[in-house]
Amino acid sequence: MALEFSWVARVYYEDTDAAGVVFYANYLKFFERARTEWLRALGFQQTSLSEEYQGLSVVKRLAVEYHAPALLDDALRVTVKIEKIGRASLALSQQVWREERLLVSATVTICWVDSKHWRPVPLPVKMRERILAAYPPKGDEF
Amino acid sequence: MALEFSWVARVYYEDTDAAGVVFYANYLKFFERARTEWLRALGFQQTSLSEEYQGLSVVKRLAVEYHAPALLDDALRVTVKIEKIGRASLALSQQVWREERLLVSATVTICWVDSKHWRPVPLPVKMRERILAAYPPKGDEF
Amino acid sequence: MALEFSWVARVYYEDTDAAGVVFYANYLKFFERARTEWLRALGFQQTSLSEEYQGLSVVKRLAVEYHAPALLDDALRVTVKIEKIGRASLALSQQVWREERLLVSATVTICWVDSKHWRPVPLPVKMRERILAAYPPKGDEF
Amino acid sequence: MALEFSWVARVYYEDTDAAGVVFYANYLKFFERARTEWLRALGFQQTSLSEEYQGLSVVKRLAVEYHAPALLDDALRVTVKIEKIGRASLALSQQVWREERLLVSATVTICWVDSKHWRPVPLPVKMRERILAAYPPKGDEF
Repeated sequence: MALEFSWVARVYYEDTDAAGVVFYANYLKFFERARTEWLRALGFQQTSLSEEYQGLSVVKRLAVEYHAPALLDDALRVTVKIEKIGRASLALSQQVWREERLLVSATVTICWVDSKHWRPVPLPVKMRERILAAYPPKGDEF
Repeated sequence: MALEFSWVARVYYEDTDAAGVVFYANYLKFFERARTEWLRALGFQQTSLSEEYQGLSVVKRLAVEYHAPALLDDALRVTVKIEKIGRASLALSQQVWREERLLVSATVTICWVDSKHWRPVPLPVKMRERILAAYPPKGDEF
Repeated sequence: MALEFSWVARVYYEDTDAAGVVFYANYLKFFERARTEWLRALGFQQTSLSEEYQGLSVVKRLAVEYHAPALLDDALRVTVKIEKIGRASLALSQQVWREERLLVSATVTICWVDSKHWRPVPLPVKMRERILAAYPPKGDEF
Repeated sequence: MALEFSWVARVYYEDTDAAGVVFYANYLKFFERARTEWLRALGFQQTSLSEEYQGLSVVKRLAVEYHAPALLDDALRVTVKIEKIGRASLALSQQVWREERLLVSATVTICWVDSKHWRPVPLPVKMRERILAAYPPKGDEF
């Protein structure tokens, strides 16, 4: 059972800076891409989500630890793992790996909001169901 | 008479890449910032433009020459000069300078389109008037 | 006594995304620009720092809270405030404001490393002195 | 015989702007990624190229036509085709397609320069040979 989703991000010139490494903000792009691909793997597209449910997911909070820099040409493995599903929010842990080395780790809290007022609303039922089906709760976790 | 608008862009880490210079796509960000500031100087904001006129300006075509690289911490002078005003479009020449050295030069064709269908529509009259007032035509130029 | 440094970032198209707001990673660019300008105000440039001291500052850890989105054309006030000076590191708190509204707040831990091996080394004495002169310790804070 | 290299770029939030489409500078990122993947397919990595040959490729000139906007979630096909090989430069034509629709087309002139002085030097022999083997000249083309 795949309890962790992972997806590969290649490092291009655009991602690096004059210090010769990936610019610290750009890991957040990798994290976002991985979350989008994770949703796609569950059968959801960002565009159709907002059309069908008049809502969108926004990042509410994040904490990042930078352990070691990623470099030009690196093929990075970016992971997504659910830590907690709330009524209107998801807590995810995400990591960036180069082979067996952990480069960056993060916890990201995503909130589901309505498209008009950007106020928290319950996660769409179908999204919640598919997430729970893919990542079944263990004991009191959810 | 100010026939050329210019505006300063500072180079930060985000703009550079692992080759130690500004990444080639990022000069297009500087050009766009300068165009936005030029419009602001004429009394227009991107957001109010699209609200008031249900339109927006899009880049239709560009040609760029890279003469020399910009570097971290550089204070660049980015210029905007009108080459031609058409019914639904503007041809601009734009340059990036570090002191007396020309680093990048471009010609950019902007098209005015309606917000719904992104089809070319005549430039808003007020925008056309203010541009002509600031940059009066010389002979057969316009 | 200026215990908080602040600096203005204008929001351009490049900063926004299809949700109509500033993309969550791009606030980290604003934070980095503000830190660079804060160092410049203290008399340091990123490039000369690395040449003179064979070192550079890297972000080791950050935590961000997103309160409300910034929008196209916003003039944002980005702040830098020292929370703690360690031997080889700085803890900063940074915020993004639109007028009187707090949009994003962060704590950022910066580490000073040598350019060759990226290992933590003591902050350059001159940098430490100028920071302490500008932000004198109150009681047991440092 | 594959006379055209192509590579897929997915559009994420980071690529779009508040107008709801891919920001005009970001197609240049897609073009650069495709060129890097094309070199990789020929057996070259950007990092090892610069180490082995003390040189790097820089964009000297480009011309871009924007036909129609790319949108969030699009899977774009980005192409690379050699137009001309000079002693120290390459002229490429590149395109961005969504299925059968051409969105953006460009011609890009790449120059090979030495890492130290950024002066044009002849393309590395091995690179030239592999390119010619993959894209054999037709008549007087080269």
